[in-house]
Amino acid sequence: MVLYKVRRLLASLFIRASGTTVVLATAIYVLGSYVFLAAVGESDIVAPGNFIYWLVVTASTVGYGDFSPVTPAGKWVVSLWVIPLGLSLFAMIVTRVGFGVSEFVQRGKKGLRNMS
Amino acid sequence: MVLYKVRRLLASLFIRASGTTVVLATAIYVLGSYVFLAAVGESDIVAPGNFIYWLVVTASTVGYGDFSPVTPAGKWVVSLWVIPLGLSLFAMIVTRVGFGVSEFVQRGKKGLRNMS
Amino acid sequence: MVLYKVRRLLASLFIRASGTTVVLATAIYVLGSYVFLAAVGESDIVAPGNFIYWLVVTASTVGYGDFSPVTPAGKWVVSLWVIPLGLSLFAMIVTRVGFGVSEFVQRGKKGLRNMS
Amino acid sequence: MVLYKVRRLLASLFIRASGTTVVLATAIYVLGSYVFLAAVGESDIVAPGNFIYWLVVTASTVGYGDFSPVTPAGKWVVSLWVIPLGLSLFAMIVTRVGFGVSEFVQRGKKGLRNMS
Ligand SMILES: [K+]
Ligand SMILES: [K+]
Repeated sequence: MVLYKVRRLLASLFIRASGTTVVLATAIYVLGSYVFLAAVGESDIVAPGNFIYWLVVTASTVGYGDFSPVTPAGKWVVSLWVIPLGLSLFAMIVTRVGFGVSEFVQRGKKGLRNMS
Repeated sequence: MVLYKVRRLLASLFIRASGTTVVLATAIYVLGSYVFLAAVGESDIVAPGNFIYWLVVTASTVGYGDFSPVTPAGKWVVSLWVIPLGLSLFAMIVTRVGFGVSEFVQRGKKGLRNMS
Repeated sequence: MVLYKVRRLLASLFIRASGTTVVLATAIYVLGSYVFLAAVGESDIVAPGNFIYWLVVTASTVGYGDFSPVTPAGKWVVSLWVIPLGLSLFAMIVTRVGFGVSEFVQRGKKGLRNMS
Repeated sequence: MVLYKVRRLLASLFIRASGTTVVLATAIYVLGSYVFLAAVGESDIVAPGNFIYWLVVTASTVGYGDFSPVTPAGKWVVSLWVIPLGLSLFAMIVTRVGFGVSEFVQRGKKGLRNMS
């Protein structure tokens, strides 16, 4: 009985937390990218007017190429942190949205079937 | 009884409207992008021969980089409006097409099973 | 009885033909892109050593930007033919591969369950 | 009886091996790309500080364009090996991650339903 309540709490925590998880993961990703790229001296990328723009352009895989890492260490940060995590975060958000849309359509169709 | 009819109408409106929704969302996206980018002075991007080309290149994530925003405000418009909405619209269209194809194949297979 | 046989034939034709459909669609896409871009004078893109390379770089959305259309008509060909059809063909192929892999895993799992 | 055990072994090998398969395929992909591009003389791409960076930028479809093949043979290697295999490997990894996440959510939901 107690075990049931604990599992119920955990499960509801997990499902309710998943939005927060994405927000938290995004915050860690943005902050980590900034700290690493500033530390290795990528001054163009971390300039105030460029950083978020460059990060969105990169994580979305648009990749205009107007800004890209020029230092050896900066290239490793982009290869091993910015691109892999950026794409995973993006895929996670797309999966969540796709799941929501598909559920919405399913309910709409079930509603129609029950009425006819 | 009346409630059933209302829900039926709403549901059929939703399903029939979803094509219109995509068209409407695309129109708002294209017009909004044009107005915002013209307002911040991105004259290269909003030039008549470039704008739709640049928007397709960006929303498809091809991103050649032959045109990209050069003003601080233009970079914010691209980061917060053009790329996020462009990719969502693209994902929405791909999901709709994928859903249609998958349903078509399912019906084909069911047809085959019923015959054998 | 005759109707059943006709439907069975059509269904099996559809499922067997879908690989051919992709090959045919790809051929039309490559030839059409070449003819349109040569007609509007995009000589760099349709140069023998560049064309397939540029088409793969574009349809995959890598988009290095070392070659991109420079004529107004070439930009319309890329916006309305090369990119939309290229991405659809790519999505079609990815869907087919993903479907095949998922079916393979499902059969593997069912096999395991039946044995245990 | 012996056949069952053989099939069980093969099936479990397949499912357990699939992580190893991805690692092995990635190793073959990286080594092959390096050998082919070095052989055709793409010295900028295969430079120690650039190669993995360039490969990640390409396979992720970010494609900044700061490095791209300049020799005719290098363009064929990128068109027929680096991009198609890179995107397939990427899709394979995304499919595996998506499958894992979806299974995790399904179990969480089933857990919740059983408790209520
Ligand atoms: K690019
Ligand atoms: K790109």
